[in-house]
Amino acid sequence: MKSKAIFYHAGCGVCVAAEQALGQALDPARYDIEVVDFNTAPDRVAEAEAAGVQSVPAYVIDGQAFHINFGASMAAVKGEA
Amino acid sequence: MKSKAIFYHAGCGVCVAAEQALGQALDPARYDIEVVDFNTAPDRVAEAEAAGVQSVPAYVIDGQAFHINFGASMAAVKGEA
Repeated sequence: MKSKAIFYHAGCGVCVAAEQALGQALDPARYDIEVVDFNTAPDRVAEAEAAGVQSVPAYVIDGQAFHINFGASMAAVKGEA
Repeated sequence: MKSKAIFYHAGCGVCVAAEQALGQALDPARYDIEVVDFNTAPDRVAEAEAAGVQSVPAYVIDGQAFHINFGASMAAVKGEA
């Protein structure tokens, strides 16, 4: 069974670069990759925060959050900053 | 021909977690992965900085730097901070 890798982003330039370079670098034989854009899926914010996502872009791989560079804080994503 | 992915780290806990989860997630059919530990290869610091590495752990994939979470600044790696 494949592991799950979820890429959370908010459409910013930093996010797009990370998605293109890191997303395509993961092993498709072992990972089901899901891309979540908060612009079109704001209902996924709570789930991302629960997984430990503090900024985007970020990958959650097997439930563990990895922040890639720094695009925007979750506060900015939620319109709080 | 495989592309090159270089993982720079300094042996910290953040680095180890990133190496284990993200390093093994890359597609071995398409990437030659090199792991550089600054503790044992301090001579690679200049090369990493030239590639845009500002903190570790970081991946440089096809020459583009991606900072993963935040373990230590390059200043700390060089003993400046």
